[in-house]
Amino acid sequence: MSEIIQKVPEATSRRLPIYYRILQKFEQSGKKRISSSELSEAMQIDAATIRRDFSHFGALGRKGYGYDVEDLVSFFRRVLNQDEQTEVALIGVGSLGSAILKYNFQKSHNTKVIVAFDPKAPPEGKQLNEVNIYHPDQMEEKLQQLDVDVVILTVPSKVAQEVTDRLVAIGIKGILNFTPVRLQVPDSIRVHTIDFSVELQTLIYFIRNDEKESQLE
Amino acid sequence: MSEIIQKVPEATSRRLPIYYRILQKFEQSGKKRISSSELSEAMQIDAATIRRDFSHFGALGRKGYGYDVEDLVSFFRRVLNQDEQTEVALIGVGSLGSAILKYNFQKSHNTKVIVAFDPKAPPEGKQLNEVNIYHPDQMEEKLQQLDVDVVILTVPSKVAQEVTDRLVAIGIKGILNFTPVRLQVPDSIRVHTIDFSVELQTLIYFIRNDEKESQLE
Repeated sequence: MSEIIQKVPEATSRRLPIYYRILQKFEQSGKKRISSSELSEAMQIDAATIRRDFSHFGALGRKGYGYDVEDLVSFFRRVLNQDEQTEVALIGVGSLGSAILKYNFQKSHNTKVIVAFDPKAPPEGKQLNEVNIYHPDQMEEKLQQLDVDVVILTVPSKVAQEVTDRLVAIGIKGILNFTPVRLQVPDSIRVHTIDFSVELQTLIYFIRNDEKESQLE
Repeated sequence: MSEIIQKVPEATSRRLPIYYRILQKFEQSGKKRISSSELSEAMQIDAATIRRDFSHFGALGRKGYGYDVEDLVSFFRRVLNQDEQTEVALIGVGSLGSAILKYNFQKSHNTKVIVAFDPKAPPEGKQLNEVNIYHPDQMEEKLQQLDVDVVILTVPSKVAQEVTDRLVAIGIKGILNFTPVRLQVPDSIRVHTIDFSVELQTLIYFIRNDEKESQLE
């Protein structure tokens, strides 16, 4: 399995969790089989792209039948390691951090914030939504104790790199970065950045470009 | 200019706001020129990709000199329409919506949330961080009055499509969607979805895949 997945293009990889999510919804609604055009409509992605994505995983569907929803869900669950729960830490419990703790991936059974850190936490720790929040002084100790290697970073920009360096030093493997800082990390560490400003600017850029294009027509 | 930009691949387009952000930081720190390897390190993107991205915009640098920081910043500002401020609306002021209002793109001078909507707002409206929050009953009226065509959607999943249909009906052009719902909209409307679960699952998927790969070595 791992050998197959390594050949999958990054763009396809990024769509896998979305395929999984959508197919799970179809399964929950009682749907047994699905055509690539139905899947295309639900995914808002053209059918050719879906067929190309799926081609990387061998024969998932049958001609004239479409796809078996249950088979696809269990296939993508395996691919995404959905059977394995990942426990993550949240670093920085300001307004965004609190929103993430409150949400805490309720709909997802395989990822969960189990510990958080914030300088406002007292030395003995405190609780929010059943998650323990400790002072950052205890960050290394607690993360190692709990064997957590994936963190969500919602700290102020000015401390983002410093906190990252501390995480790197204890062997963290992945950071979901909500700060606008382009974190410097060794190649072996995955950083995925979600910068609301950049996302909004990109959206606006595409909209204005659509407008220019339609004016040229 | 618009003709040139239309030929740019989507992956390049998505990096433009990041180039702009990084170059602006160099400019603010007093740096006059920059080599593609320096830019590569700051961007955490290989130099070949940067040169390929820049090649879509003609000759931006000079051989043996590198790039003039100020020229690049003003070039990307023009490309991204940074000179033009976009006022956006926030729909749904729960915990994530509040975090976004609090943050309100302070570092960005060209995007700003100017109005928000939430069912808990009284008929006469209320204020949070100097932004007026109205009841959703007034959504169409206020958005049209204020000439807003880009919204940030932070409503509960179960009402996301219904709210979207109302926005489509009054001619909204873009939605930054923070709900996990794959919104159904006409082709002419841009939707950019940020789903924290999917982002986290994708990150974990890449990490686990890295691990498998290193075990095979």
